Amino acid sequence: MAKLWQKTYDLNELIETFTVGEDYILDLALIPADCIASLAHAMMLNTIGILKDDELNSLKKTLINILKLHEKGDFPILKSDEDGHTAIENYLTKYCGDAGKKIHTGRSRNDQVIAALRLFSRDVLVHFKQACHSLIRSLTGFADKHKDVPMPGRTHMQIAMPSSVGLWAGAFAEELLDDLKLVNTAYQLNNMCPLGSAASYGVPLPLNRELVSDLLGFEKVQNNVLYVNNSRGKIESIILSGIDHTVLTLSKLAQDLILFSMPEFGYFSLPGELCSGSSIMPQKKNPDALELLRAKSASISSAVSQLKQILRSLPSGYNRDFQETKGPFLKGMYAGIACVKIMDLTIRELNVHREKLIKGFIPEIYATDAAFRLVKEGIPFRDAYRSAGMNPGLLDTFDPEKVIKEKSYTGTTGNLCLEKTREELDRKSVELKKEKDRIDRKWKHLVGFVPDLARGFLAGL
Amino acid sequence: MAKLWQKTYDLNELIETFTVGEDYILDLALIPADCIASLAHAMMLNTIGILKDDELNSLKKTLINILKLHEKGDFPILKSDEDGHTAIENYLTKYCGDAGKKIHTGRSRNDQVIAALRLFSRDVLVHFKQACHSLIRSLTGFADKHKDVPMPGRTHMQIAMPSSVGLWAGAFAEELLDDLKLVNTAYQLNNMCPLGSAASYGVPLPLNRELVSDLLGFEKVQNNVLYVNNSRGKIESIILSGIDHTVLTLSKLAQDLILFSMPEFGYFSLPGELCSGSSIMPQKKNPDALELLRAKSASISSAVSQLKQILRSLPSGYNRDFQETKGPFLKGMYAGIACVKIMDLTIRELNVHREKLIKGFIPEIYATDAAFRLVKEGIPFRDAYRSAGMNPGLLDTFDPEKVIKEKSYTGTTGNLCLEKTREELDRKSVELKKEKDRIDRKWKHLVGFVPDLARGFLAGL
Amino acid sequence: MAKLWQKTYDLNELIETFTVGEDYILDLALIPADCIASLAHAMMLNTIGILKDDELNSLKKTLINILKLHEKGDFPILKSDEDGHTAIENYLTKYCGDAGKKIHTGRSRNDQVIAALRLFSRDVLVHFKQACHSLIRSLTGFADKHKDVPMPGRTHMQIAMPSSVGLWAGAFAEELLDDLKLVNTAYQLNNMCPLGSAASYGVPLPLNRELVSDLLGFEKVQNNVLYVNNSRGKIESIILSGIDHTVLTLSKLAQDLILFSMPEFGYFSLPGELCSGSSIMPQKKNPDALELLRAKSASISSAVSQLKQILRSLPSGYNRDFQETKGPFLKGMYAGIACVKIMDLTIRELNVHREKLIKGFIPEIYATDAAFRLVKEGIPFRDAYRSAGMNPGLLDTFDPEKVIKEKSYTGTTGNLCLEKTREELDRKSVELKKEKDRIDRKWKHLVGFVPDLARGFLAGL
Amino acid sequence: MAKLWQKTYDLNELIETFTVGEDYILDLALIPADCIASLAHAMMLNTIGILKDDELNSLKKTLINILKLHEKGDFPILKSDEDGHTAIENYLTKYCGDAGKKIHTGRSRNDQVIAALRLFSRDVLVHFKQACHSLIRSLTGFADKHKDVPMPGRTHMQIAMPSSVGLWAGAFAEELLDDLKLVNTAYQLNNMCPLGSAASYGVPLPLNRELVSDLLGFEKVQNNVLYVNNSRGKIESIILSGIDHTVLTLSKLAQDLILFSMPEFGYFSLPGELCSGSSIMPQKKNPDALELLRAKSASISSAVSQLKQILRSLPSGYNRDFQETKGPFLKGMYAGIACVKIMDLTIRELNVHREKLIKGFIPEIYATDAAFRLVKEGIPFRDAYRSAGMNPGLLDTFDPEKVIKEKSYTGTTGNLCLEKTREELDRKSVELKKEKDRIDRKWKHLVGFVPDLARGFLAGL
Repeated sequence: MAKLWQKTYDLNELIETFTVGEDYILDLALIPADCIASLAHAMMLNTIGILKDDELNSLKKTLINILKLHEKGDFPILKSDEDGHTAIENYLTKYCGDAGKKIHTGRSRNDQVIAALRLFSRDVLVHFKQACHSLIRSLTGFADKHKDVPMPGRTHMQIAMPSSVGLWAGAFAEELLDDLKLVNTAYQLNNMCPLGSAASYGVPLPLNRELVSDLLGFEKVQNNVLYVNNSRGKIESIILSGIDHTVLTLSKLAQDLILFSMPEFGYFSLPGELCSGSSIMPQKKNPDALELLRAKSASISSAVSQLKQILRSLPSGYNRDFQETKGPFLKGMYAGIACVKIMDLTIRELNVHREKLIKGFIPEIYATDAAFRLVKEGIPFRDAYRSAGMNPGLLDTFDPEKVIKEKSYTGTTGNLCLEKTREELDRKSVELKKEKDRIDRKWKHLVGFVPDLARGFLAGL
Repeated sequence: MAKLWQKTYDLNELIETFTVGEDYILDLALIPADCIASLAHAMMLNTIGILKDDELNSLKKTLINILKLHEKGDFPILKSDEDGHTAIENYLTKYCGDAGKKIHTGRSRNDQVIAALRLFSRDVLVHFKQACHSLIRSLTGFADKHKDVPMPGRTHMQIAMPSSVGLWAGAFAEELLDDLKLVNTAYQLNNMCPLGSAASYGVPLPLNRELVSDLLGFEKVQNNVLYVNNSRGKIESIILSGIDHTVLTLSKLAQDLILFSMPEFGYFSLPGELCSGSSIMPQKKNPDALELLRAKSASISSAVSQLKQILRSLPSGYNRDFQETKGPFLKGMYAGIACVKIMDLTIRELNVHREKLIKGFIPEIYATDAAFRLVKEGIPFRDAYRSAGMNPGLLDTFDPEKVIKEKSYTGTTGNLCLEKTREELDRKSVELKKEKDRIDRKWKHLVGFVPDLARGFLAGL
Repeated sequence: MAKLWQKTYDLNELIETFTVGEDYILDLALIPADCIASLAHAMMLNTIGILKDDELNSLKKTLINILKLHEKGDFPILKSDEDGHTAIENYLTKYCGDAGKKIHTGRSRNDQVIAALRLFSRDVLVHFKQACHSLIRSLTGFADKHKDVPMPGRTHMQIAMPSSVGLWAGAFAEELLDDLKLVNTAYQLNNMCPLGSAASYGVPLPLNRELVSDLLGFEKVQNNVLYVNNSRGKIESIILSGIDHTVLTLSKLAQDLILFSMPEFGYFSLPGELCSGSSIMPQKKNPDALELLRAKSASISSAVSQLKQILRSLPSGYNRDFQETKGPFLKGMYAGIACVKIMDLTIRELNVHREKLIKGFIPEIYATDAAFRLVKEGIPFRDAYRSAGMNPGLLDTFDPEKVIKEKSYTGTTGNLCLEKTREELDRKSVELKKEKDRIDRKWKHLVGFVPDLARGFLAGL
Repeated sequence: MAKLWQKTYDLNELIETFTVGEDYILDLALIPADCIASLAHAMMLNTIGILKDDELNSLKKTLINILKLHEKGDFPILKSDEDGHTAIENYLTKYCGDAGKKIHTGRSRNDQVIAALRLFSRDVLVHFKQACHSLIRSLTGFADKHKDVPMPGRTHMQIAMPSSVGLWAGAFAEELLDDLKLVNTAYQLNNMCPLGSAASYGVPLPLNRELVSDLLGFEKVQNNVLYVNNSRGKIESIILSGIDHTVLTLSKLAQDLILFSMPEFGYFSLPGELCSGSSIMPQKKNPDALELLRAKSASISSAVSQLKQILRSLPSGYNRDFQETKGPFLKGMYAGIACVKIMDLTIRELNVHREKLIKGFIPEIYATDAAFRLVKEGIPFRDAYRSAGMNPGLLDTFDPEKVIKEKSYTGTTGNLCLEKTREELDRKSVELKKEKDRIDRKWKHLVGFVPDLARGFLAGL
């Protein structure tokens, strides 16, 4: 089919291959969101007299048809279509005639792709947050279950002071809750309606941006039409940055798990179903998924950096450079959700070996506790510290289970305050449920059912 | 003076040079915050009986003395001190005797440096937000003043559609307000009290973390003591990421300004006081500061990436790798504030050349407007688009000032809605003022006056 | 089919999806190289008595069959195969029986994938260098053709001093020749035979690594078997770094071209076949490919950084993290070649507009030349500089075409020394041809024909 | 003193602070190189009649005087000087009168700073290579000494197959030799003379670039004068990229060392002089330097990425953005040398604990050896592999010292081929010595003695 901007001459073939790139494949993920946004746009065009009622009905029917074809994998985007937007418009023109030719009135592919990306990202972020909530719940449960299991606390990877499995797991639960604050801010920035900005400079028609925004469940209209295009890639970088910080947390957890499930420690073990083997060493059970998670963290961070590099110092308005942000953004989001789910599975299946953990309590681990005994006798800390350091004999028979209970103020092994985490998590889960319901109601109103705009994209997870 | 962990043998000299690095210089920025945090910690130790009243008084007097010495540049940190924490403790021990040796009771340098960094960062962020508010105000004022000045709108850097100076400037004002949402989330995550976590595993003393947190004006205690140390560098990366996204916005503004003040465009010009010259070409007036701003954006982004790379896959608990996060964090924050202030100055001094802007309105700029005339006559957009493209004759005498007023829906040249920006900015300014007052009251209560923990650091800006 | 390490239980499905990732798709690019390497390995196994003559013949026939199936797109890798190596071994076992089960003797997938990557990369680099040579030839020809066409020289993007189109284009030709030195070093490091290292620790069989290396045309055996695996991803990062530096050069060239083909300059123009249009603005001709090239430069740099991040601080020996290096490496190489070819096409088709270039010679451009007139009269440069700066009247009627010829020492507008570039290029082309012939002879000897191991991968370019 | 481009008005103070940045501090490192390059430039100006003999003599005397003042720390650069070039010119003008005002004839600060950077970098690279050679020698010696000490070989951080301390250490020696190939290519690209390019467009004087190049010991003139400026920052990124790849190798070595010196392994230990302690835990001996080395690797990589980001898509000719490349380049080079020296010290002092290493040989480590016993009996590898995996009973009494000797082909534990490494290292050392002597002769000829242009910069290392 024809390109939307078809001229009287043909584009050089190498240029076409290069500029289309893998857009026609990546755009498959955006088809449902694009259909939804197109429908809202069409409904607005109808209210301002651009589309007649029967034209709108025809477009609505056909857009819903595309949605269904896509779900079955029957709505391909051809390379010659350039992208999903063109594929949709060509299909509409084929089946709706003039109505199809009118759908692009008052919009550009610039705001069209932004709208699709935002709706799509919103659904992906809902999935991401759900996955994080589940993982935090698993970690909190794990921390609670093992709150009295001693674990050597380390600094510089060296044995340092008594700790517990509960403290260790609880630390990650809290960090993830904080990471989600970044994701929530990104969610909010993403939830602005770009439609009506067209190619950054609006159009000379009385578009009703507020109506479109409301139909699509956006929180508000993104006001300045040039800002809309200037934010292409930027919002994506913000979303991915939130995901990146979350997975960075998981990279630490993965490293701890890989380390502490080595036979030399044996604190934890993974069931065989979570490990893979070697093609040459028959005895191996390797924590492949955790290793890949470490690497994925590097990949997601690189994608964030890539997005910012692509955007840096670009002049205002649309630049084709933006296209190159789509791939890393989509891949980064997919990897982010996958990592969270892998970690959730891992924590739920993780075995804890109490005896190995206690074996790690070498006498030196109590040196600080010994110093504090002297402090309690009134010796200044710095002197007590020196005494303890010089006299390993002070390290008499401490009991691992007792010492971890002795630390009893806020946030310590004897007083984890897991209920704080649980309460915040519960609050967040209720909010998320409410937001999800809000969107569902919008979709029911708009198309009569509730499409999951991220379902195809997340297949397999 | 002695290191806090002094052993019976000496550290290899090369190792010492390498491990101390420039910490003893960087830590100068943290001395005031460290004194403040140390005082709050001492007050708490007094309430649980570790420090006697006279010991506390002696420490308080001496810590305030350090604050004053530092302000005058008279509190140096020696390389042999390793860092500022040691310099302070050594000084306290010298002047307060046993009380000095007790100050480290219940804390580690690990939570001590985190506390200092957070208090310091909080003050720097207040300055950063103030600078951003000022810039947004300048941009909004500029947009308002020039809201009717036509400006060629571009996509692909090519002339595209009619736009206005008001739309252009307003876009950046809105984007910066959104960027500040990221900074606010970072502010909130930073505003948690780390003290009491010690080396990640707490101490066997009944510390009162809530009291310390309250004295220092933190929003809450950062609960899990291991999480405290796991978040070292992480919170910094989150803060810097917010600043990075802000400066990324400025890089686009800088690029536009450099481009549009080239003689070939001449839309804008910078007064001579803001330009520098060439050592070989006597006629040159170069936009050096804007070029450097572009580069600083790359530097800040790299610093964010550096922080995350340093942290990735580190096991739980303190690792010396953390030290390497301090330099890029401090430099990144300084560069961030500098960029915002440079841009504020630039916008306030910028000259606008209306006649050059209007000269940019070549006939083709009206092609889309021409297409929409046909649309209004009922021709489907896609056909109208093709007609306009094929028949440049349609591009009759449009008037630049009239066409930009014709776009009248939300966020377009004829309806910028700058009042939305102004209202949000006013709201944010009030909040910031309130928060600043809250902190000031804490300091008055704690030390009797209001030290600006970032003043020395920001000297020259 | 079964995994190579199949155990008695099944791998968790989510873990499988996550760990296989897109390996089974990416590996398609490596199938030909893997077949070739497998054949050389088998020939060596035959010489040490592991494979009988008829077993070797059967394997050879079947491997060549796979090569041909793959060329027709008829050798798919199933997700359940995990990767291409398994697909090949399973196919060999199916068609060659015990011989198939013996092919993996003395190797691991670790050294197998490295071998395939190196052979594949070697062929891709040959293509890359050929493309660069062609581009350098185009640039040199372009520089020669336009060596007397004046062009405003700029610093700080501002008009600075007289220059020429020849100087401008010649600068890029020389830079690219230097960039190729990095690529050549990478080529050399890549050209070491990894086979025989197995899983990093060798095997208790008398493998003949030298024979395999020779059969495959490697320059030498990569000696230490642990180093072989430690270099996984590392050599890739080195190759990509060379490509990255090359494309960085192109990003500057692209930026110049985008800038100078804006109507405000009009120095250059691109034919329509190399531009694309807008879906809403019918008049637009946009330099999309050059914009994308700019973005691709950011993507390739990010991929280099990603590879290094994945590798950093990994302990010795194989880690699953390595798998994550494959995607960015392959994509980066493809993008690199594409960018070079796009630029070659652009330079070959570029139109030069002499009158617009000369129009850029505003009087101030001669200020330095004016200062040097004074210098020639004996006035110290610094005073001459000040005089010229203060007295624009000095800038009398210089002639653009004359001034650029007046600079006549090495490397200036009047003396470009393009013959140096041409000579070096000719030398490099001869070397490359020789190396290509050398490899071709190896393939003829090994399989009887000359497969292009990169052909499928580079389809479309 | 005055800026070189002083105009009739003053630069805004904030702009000055921002644009000067820390250049006036960083430039201290470049003063010696700048003096040397200025002298060569002056000698050339003398040959073409710009400088009289007595003017040249006066300049020579004064430049050598600056060299000596600088060595004693008595040649400060004032912030108002902007940079070192201005400080030198101002000093020359003060002491040599008109001769000082003539020194800038035919050059710009653009080519001046590039010349200084290249001479300086060349000396730093000589130090870097010397340090690497020393480390490689240490590693090879260490490998040789412990070539028969068994060490568990790992993949996925899990125990995999028998290995040796010799194989482990030798792997790093070889990798570093290969890394040096990248450094050598960077050295070669750096060793081109930029002088004469002035502000990118030459000057209308008959400069003799070949003479200057020869006096300064450059390998050749960098021909195209625009390319000279286009390569600013680029050559730096190439140098730093070579260093980065080297330190990346060290990050792996550091991680291995940190891991294997944990008490749970105890394979290696560091003497106390190389460790530091804790401020709260008196018993701790932490591998701080190795942890910092890991972090420095991230910092150096980030600096490489930063340089490329700053350069990307800049238009041709000088842009002020270049200034921002100086800091990360200098810091990156310093960190690189420091890391190599730290590692050399560590390897030389490292203790090896044979009994702990052998303790790591759990029975499963022999599974592959067991499979190969079956292979030798004629069982196809894939079947042997499955047998061994299913029947741990096969893992009878292997002897660690015997199995590592049994692998006897090239590059394996029984046949490390360390002599190859030694020979290559010897060859490289001879070349380096020769190159150093060559430069020394140039300096003797030029100034009569041999200044080390990097000495001040590397103080402490």
